[in-house]
Amino acid sequence: MLSDILHAQQVLLLFKKRAVQHIVISPGSRNAPLTISFTNDSYFKCYSIVDERCASHFAMGIAQQLKQPVAVVCTSGSALLNYYPAVTEAFYSEIPLIVLSADRPPHKIDIGDGQTIRQQHVYANHILYDTHLEMINSLDDQEAMATNERLINKAINVAITNHGPVHINIPFEEPLYNTVNVPKVDPKVVDPIIETNASIPSLFIDRWEKANRKLVILSTLNPDVFTQDQLNLITSDPTVLVISEVSSNIRHEKIIWGIDTLIAPIENDEDAIAHLQPDMVVTIGGMIVSKKIKQYLRRFETQYHYHIGNRRAYDTFFKLAGHIKTAPTHWVDQLSINETSDSYRDYWLQFFNNYLIKRTDYLAAIPWSDFRAFNLIFDSLPDDIVLQLGNSSTIRYAQLFPMNPTHTVFSNRGTSGIDGSTSTAIGAAVAQDKPTVCITGDLSFLYDSNALWNNYIPANFKIIVINNSGGGIFRILPGEKDNHTFDTYFETTHQLDASHLCKMYDINYHRVDGEDAFAKAYEKFLNDNSKPQLLEIFTPRLENDTVLLDYFKFLK
Amino acid sequence: MLSDILHAQQVLLLFKKRAVQHIVISPGSRNAPLTISFTNDSYFKCYSIVDERCASHFAMGIAQQLKQPVAVVCTSGSALLNYYPAVTEAFYSEIPLIVLSADRPPHKIDIGDGQTIRQQHVYANHILYDTHLEMINSLDDQEAMATNERLINKAINVAITNHGPVHINIPFEEPLYNTVNVPKVDPKVVDPIIETNASIPSLFIDRWEKANRKLVILSTLNPDVFTQDQLNLITSDPTVLVISEVSSNIRHEKIIWGIDTLIAPIENDEDAIAHLQPDMVVTIGGMIVSKKIKQYLRRFETQYHYHIGNRRAYDTFFKLAGHIKTAPTHWVDQLSINETSDSYRDYWLQFFNNYLIKRTDYLAAIPWSDFRAFNLIFDSLPDDIVLQLGNSSTIRYAQLFPMNPTHTVFSNRGTSGIDGSTSTAIGAAVAQDKPTVCITGDLSFLYDSNALWNNYIPANFKIIVINNSGGGIFRILPGEKDNHTFDTYFETTHQLDASHLCKMYDINYHRVDGEDAFAKAYEKFLNDNSKPQLLEIFTPRLENDTVLLDYFKFLK
Repeated sequence: MLSDILHAQQVLLLFKKRAVQHIVISPGSRNAPLTISFTNDSYFKCYSIVDERCASHFAMGIAQQLKQPVAVVCTSGSALLNYYPAVTEAFYSEIPLIVLSADRPPHKIDIGDGQTIRQQHVYANHILYDTHLEMINSLDDQEAMATNERLINKAINVAITNHGPVHINIPFEEPLYNTVNVPKVDPKVVDPIIETNASIPSLFIDRWEKANRKLVILSTLNPDVFTQDQLNLITSDPTVLVISEVSSNIRHEKIIWGIDTLIAPIENDEDAIAHLQPDMVVTIGGMIVSKKIKQYLRRFETQYHYHIGNRRAYDTFFKLAGHIKTAPTHWVDQLSINETSDSYRDYWLQFFNNYLIKRTDYLAAIPWSDFRAFNLIFDSLPDDIVLQLGNSSTIRYAQLFPMNPTHTVFSNRGTSGIDGSTSTAIGAAVAQDKPTVCITGDLSFLYDSNALWNNYIPANFKIIVINNSGGGIFRILPGEKDNHTFDTYFETTHQLDASHLCKMYDINYHRVDGEDAFAKAYEKFLNDNSKPQLLEIFTPRLENDTVLLDYFKFLK
Repeated sequence: MLSDILHAQQVLLLFKKRAVQHIVISPGSRNAPLTISFTNDSYFKCYSIVDERCASHFAMGIAQQLKQPVAVVCTSGSALLNYYPAVTEAFYSEIPLIVLSADRPPHKIDIGDGQTIRQQHVYANHILYDTHLEMINSLDDQEAMATNERLINKAINVAITNHGPVHINIPFEEPLYNTVNVPKVDPKVVDPIIETNASIPSLFIDRWEKANRKLVILSTLNPDVFTQDQLNLITSDPTVLVISEVSSNIRHEKIIWGIDTLIAPIENDEDAIAHLQPDMVVTIGGMIVSKKIKQYLRRFETQYHYHIGNRRAYDTFFKLAGHIKTAPTHWVDQLSINETSDSYRDYWLQFFNNYLIKRTDYLAAIPWSDFRAFNLIFDSLPDDIVLQLGNSSTIRYAQLFPMNPTHTVFSNRGTSGIDGSTSTAIGAAVAQDKPTVCITGDLSFLYDSNALWNNYIPANFKIIVINNSGGGIFRILPGEKDNHTFDTYFETTHQLDASHLCKMYDINYHRVDGEDAFAKAYEKFLNDNSKPQLLEIFTPRLENDTVLLDYFKFLK
């Protein structure tokens, strides 16, 4: 059974032929032709989520794991505006999300009908491709049929090849609920044009070979981008210092995993700053989390910055010399290795290892706090999990710990918003079999509380909320603290906890108020897979910032 | 104390001079110059709300009551995308909402910094005016200072004179937290150009005088648009039939208050349809709620449709002959009254009164259901309240009851979304002294659950949730019912209730499962003003639609 509306049939059949299998639907009447068609075809895995802000982040979480396009389907009106935060996150995180928005026919826009807005091009600033289908009333309408085929194919192709969100706006007129048993159309597939890897420019190779101090920064990357052999190769060059972010999904003994831990203590040490200064910077991966490395590299006028990757390149340090549009592995395979004994790499690896010894002393002594809680969490997470990190404080604390190499790590670093982390994590949990642990802050968790209004949360899904009674990150930023303006409008202090939401949505709740209670609660939380679990860890609001800032002082 | 950033000072001082007093702030660092400045000036009434989707609907609720611009202030990144549903509602509901979004300086966009998106023109489809301020680094920068003054004045003027949302995007560079005690700028006010009322075109007057059957439709209107004398005058003409919607805030013995009750029973009666057919239709007010009147009037080719009002005119029936841009009162004051004895008005008033007698019988006999619950609610609401109605079922049921003339009634009919009704109601409750009652459905309430994450809810604020375990409106629409697709993707059935959210946010919770328990719970709910109250009324999901549809059959 499917809708009798011909252009709804075109969408359905092309999505099936192109293997866009996961469809996240929010309720509505205008989108009935799509809803009826997708949900009555057993090929599709459909999900029903009411709040479109959560639905779209959930879909993005699925797409993030599968690396395949996932569709969201909504009715007309403000529904699709609630997708916009996730669309923009997908735009900057390069995740293939396909928005299918039902619309009124064009002559019914702006005539005063309900749930009717100007949907065409509504995501103009943050969409790779948007289009508006033709209404097809008869099989004789061959020209419009061909147009739609082309537009739908193009949208799917752009989502796949350019890695990001696309929008197909689809006008429907009543009757919306009529069905047929057999489709009347048979749309043709237009395959995408696959780009081959570009060759490495000789100018780059020349500069690389001549540079004595090359800094390679690995930021947000999918797991398993490099083989162990490739990592061994790149780290075998003593003129190459590789540093990685927690979201790079890379661990290697010769790669510095703690950028902020490396940079913070030398920020005011001009000798060390000069000594670390690279001749050349190579970035691989998405948005860089560390503000410190950006500030550090923006100081210098001289070095070259190249970005290597098939997707977008950002001029993050204001000195981008080139974007080599190729797979990073393709580049590593052609790498020439320098044989010098003057080791930029070893100096800084040694420097970092000295920090790590000091760091051990500091960690052993710190009082109960955000920092301590993150330490305990990361020390004893089980192997082989998917880790989803919230924005703001969570990802920044995570950067201070070495990730477990059996973990895969994700975070919505496209817009770095606090608005959909839990929903994304739930989508990611649904899309693969490993247990998923979402770590988030209290404001981020509360912001996305409707994430839990979701019937698909796997029993082994786990959330850790670090509750410091407000936006703890504001304590680390400059500005006056502990006055009415700060407490109310920056930190936005509150006394809320997650227990009521857990009761409401049937999630097992564990509460930890201090270190003594941590181990036992954590163990129960990790081992109970009978239903989703939430561990809420309360930390002292007024002390967290000191513990963190003292860490960087201590390392000096 | 205020920010030392000069263009932040310009915004602050112009908002003060222009009496934009209510400022709803969501936390962030990039917007610190605005937050510090507004919150440290006692002129401004500031509110802190974390979830921007709720913050913007809350601000709209304040503006809706005050009929003055209200500002929302957010940080950079996805924050301002979460305003978009409210911005669009304000656009179609013609409510003056001013978005102040902090941004990075232009050279820091798309270089890979966190919380950085393409903010300029992001609301392009649904904004009356958007602009981007210049960064001002010195008092010598006179040209940029003058430009900003002009842009800020223009934004405020457009919001006031054109009644709707505007967007001022404001780039800030670090340091963001520095302050001074005395502003260094003194921006000048540019007053808006006030349009005078247009004269009534003679062609309209001619057609009006000649028409024997004139239908005047009063849709969404602010309270007290017409005086009682004006209503007496317009209803004194026997050739004029006036019908009103619940959101018109108008009650008069010679005005038909139940459009759907009037139209539904005659939908298939060709004689009655022809007899009601007007020679001329005049609409006054915003979006029309009733689908039935739209469908009815779209049938005919002949009559003229004029819209009277200073704002936008929609060609709702596809036969708009003219838009008379004048205050509706100005028109009524010039009205010529027809003295004919052939009374179009009296025939239909009589017709409607006959329905009302039948209606009494039906209401007396109906079983426990949505319809019955609404009947009981509207029968005994106290006088002199502000009534805020949710979309979908709530507003449609409300249309079936005569409103209490001491009530003022509001609903987000711009986009008719379910996404911000509770937040809007809370904003409205904060902005004036009358008790506010918000009536909403379960899906709409759950969708906007973060509305309750709000420290400003007045103690006498009350919410009624009609919980029919899903999207009851879908049962009234065509299409197959009671299969997996319908239950899961249309009605989206659930077993949730509001009790946990009430505990979480310290709201008194009352539960009603059937008619026996209603009266007592309702009384307690209405009379307890010690803190906000929520009354959740459970109705039988599978029976509600029959009770409603039978009502229209019974009237025939």
